[in-house]
Amino acid sequence: MSKRLVVALSGGVGGAKLALGLSRVLPAEELLVVANTGDDFEHLGLSISPDVDTLTYVLAGLDNPVAGWGRRDETWSFMDSIGELGGEGWFRLGDRDLALHVERTRRLRLGQTLSEVTSDICRRLGIGVRVVPMSDDRVRTRVRGDAGWIDFQDYFVRQQCRPVVHELAFDGATFARPQADIMAALHSGDVRAVIICPSNPFISIEPILAMSGMRDAIKVSGAPVVAVSPIIGGQAVKGPTAKMMGELGLEASAAGVAARYGDLLDGYIVDHADADGIGTVGARVTIAKTLMTSLQDRETLARVTLDAADALASQR
Amino acid sequence: MSKRLVVALSGGVGGAKLALGLSRVLPAEELLVVANTGDDFEHLGLSISPDVDTLTYVLAGLDNPVAGWGRRDETWSFMDSIGELGGEGWFRLGDRDLALHVERTRRLRLGQTLSEVTSDICRRLGIGVRVVPMSDDRVRTRVRGDAGWIDFQDYFVRQQCRPVVHELAFDGATFARPQADIMAALHSGDVRAVIICPSNPFISIEPILAMSGMRDAIKVSGAPVVAVSPIIGGQAVKGPTAKMMGELGLEASAAGVAARYGDLLDGYIVDHADADGIGTVGARVTIAKTLMTSLQDRETLARVTLDAADALASQR
Repeated sequence: MSKRLVVALSGGVGGAKLALGLSRVLPAEELLVVANTGDDFEHLGLSISPDVDTLTYVLAGLDNPVAGWGRRDETWSFMDSIGELGGEGWFRLGDRDLALHVERTRRLRLGQTLSEVTSDICRRLGIGVRVVPMSDDRVRTRVRGDAGWIDFQDYFVRQQCRPVVHELAFDGATFARPQADIMAALHSGDVRAVIICPSNPFISIEPILAMSGMRDAIKVSGAPVVAVSPIIGGQAVKGPTAKMMGELGLEASAAGVAARYGDLLDGYIVDHADADGIGTVGARVTIAKTLMTSLQDRETLARVTLDAADALASQR
Repeated sequence: MSKRLVVALSGGVGGAKLALGLSRVLPAEELLVVANTGDDFEHLGLSISPDVDTLTYVLAGLDNPVAGWGRRDETWSFMDSIGELGGEGWFRLGDRDLALHVERTRRLRLGQTLSEVTSDICRRLGIGVRVVPMSDDRVRTRVRGDAGWIDFQDYFVRQQCRPVVHELAFDGATFARPQADIMAALHSGDVRAVIICPSNPFISIEPILAMSGMRDAIKVSGAPVVAVSPIIGGQAVKGPTAKMMGELGLEASAAGVAARYGDLLDGYIVDHADADGIGTVGARVTIAKTLMTSLQDRETLARVTLDAADALASQR
């Protein structure tokens, strides 16, 4: 009997696009989406989980497709007012989006876990697939620039990725326990594929992989690991991936991302634009259209990725 | 040399109207507005101080004059969204208003006092007069109805004052220390008048008076105490004052309010509509127009009240 579970590791925008595609081509119970929480932070006294939220909004059909983060049909009265009161305005929280942060913060303070809160909110928003934070323990991505170590959101939002990145750290990752459902899935013997979504490897995927036991559990699952390149034609679709690769001394290319993942990968999906330069990357390469503009693009890339995984599995 | 300080005790809507009038006829440094905090509560994990906020918005010119609470030009996206997530929707928080609650909650959690937060926010909103919460300690008004004791906002907002009130309690009031600026003012020897604004005596003024040392300090100030009746023609302008008086076995009239304040009062301002029925109430009665619809009404009633106090002081 063929194995059924698909475990997708994801950051925000790009990853959520593929997660949506996967959610539309798989039965809900066969997909587990693991959300990076390394860029979670506390702001204005609220607990904010940007990648969990982007996945939630995208999978619920509530996302703002133009911005790539936050909610559609958003209003900004809160932000207009918080500045008048001396509150910090550099991280923009829409009025609708704020409801999620306020409600999550309230429940976390009551002792619920981030997993429990996320699960309940997904259920209320009608999301069938499981979205789980990578851990209920605190992991915080930090960035070392010319001026020393800074918090991730300081780098990413306040300074809009301007600092040159010399090094990344995931504070707490070695002590954080991967969320229980993830480990249960990876140890179930029923994993069809582990998919690494087209997210920034350094700041979206590596915090997940940095947790103790995570790489081992992926290996133990026996499932093929297939990544989708977040780089198309040497450029990141969105965000600082390419800039960051250059600063870290890596080749800013689809091949560079594959090299970074190293022997973790069994399969690798790259765009037609990168077909010529991909060379040998230590994983079976599939050429596809990886730019997802339409819903059909998302579904098709999901199918291509699953097919690549299934082909790898059948040849083991 | 004549005394200068005016200390005004206030609840929300009605009290804030007179406080605004006073703020416009007095130099800013001569007015101290004391806000009831008995109806403060925690909701959605946020610290909410309804009377402090109404005073703040009214004095800053940001209030919603139709509703009598909250901010003008308000939007409601947060409330639309919080319900989807399972958050409680019975207490309506506008998107702009929310900024105040989020920022206050953040600062209180950092260890600032409610006085400090209120003072800073008033300064940022350009309010010249001092608005001080009655205490930085926790006082919570509770209401005993047919179904037992309930929290004030449950009674006031969720159940819209429908329960019959048998008794009121101000949890914590006997241990709460009146805010330091209030006590310093009352002990300064420079108090021109203590004004009891036209607020609900039971739920807006009595929590203030219930704090240990408060009545004594008012007496020690030596200043005339002048109340403005919240009842006009046997009706409350807004809110449950008249209904509550009937339920508590008191006469729902201007005279009934004066009787409730008892020998605390030196002067009492009642509307022309109540002139015939006022009789002898143990305080010097002034008849005036007490319904404040225009800004001029607010200023005029403030002057009338101060004149009544000054006349009482000159005859001591």
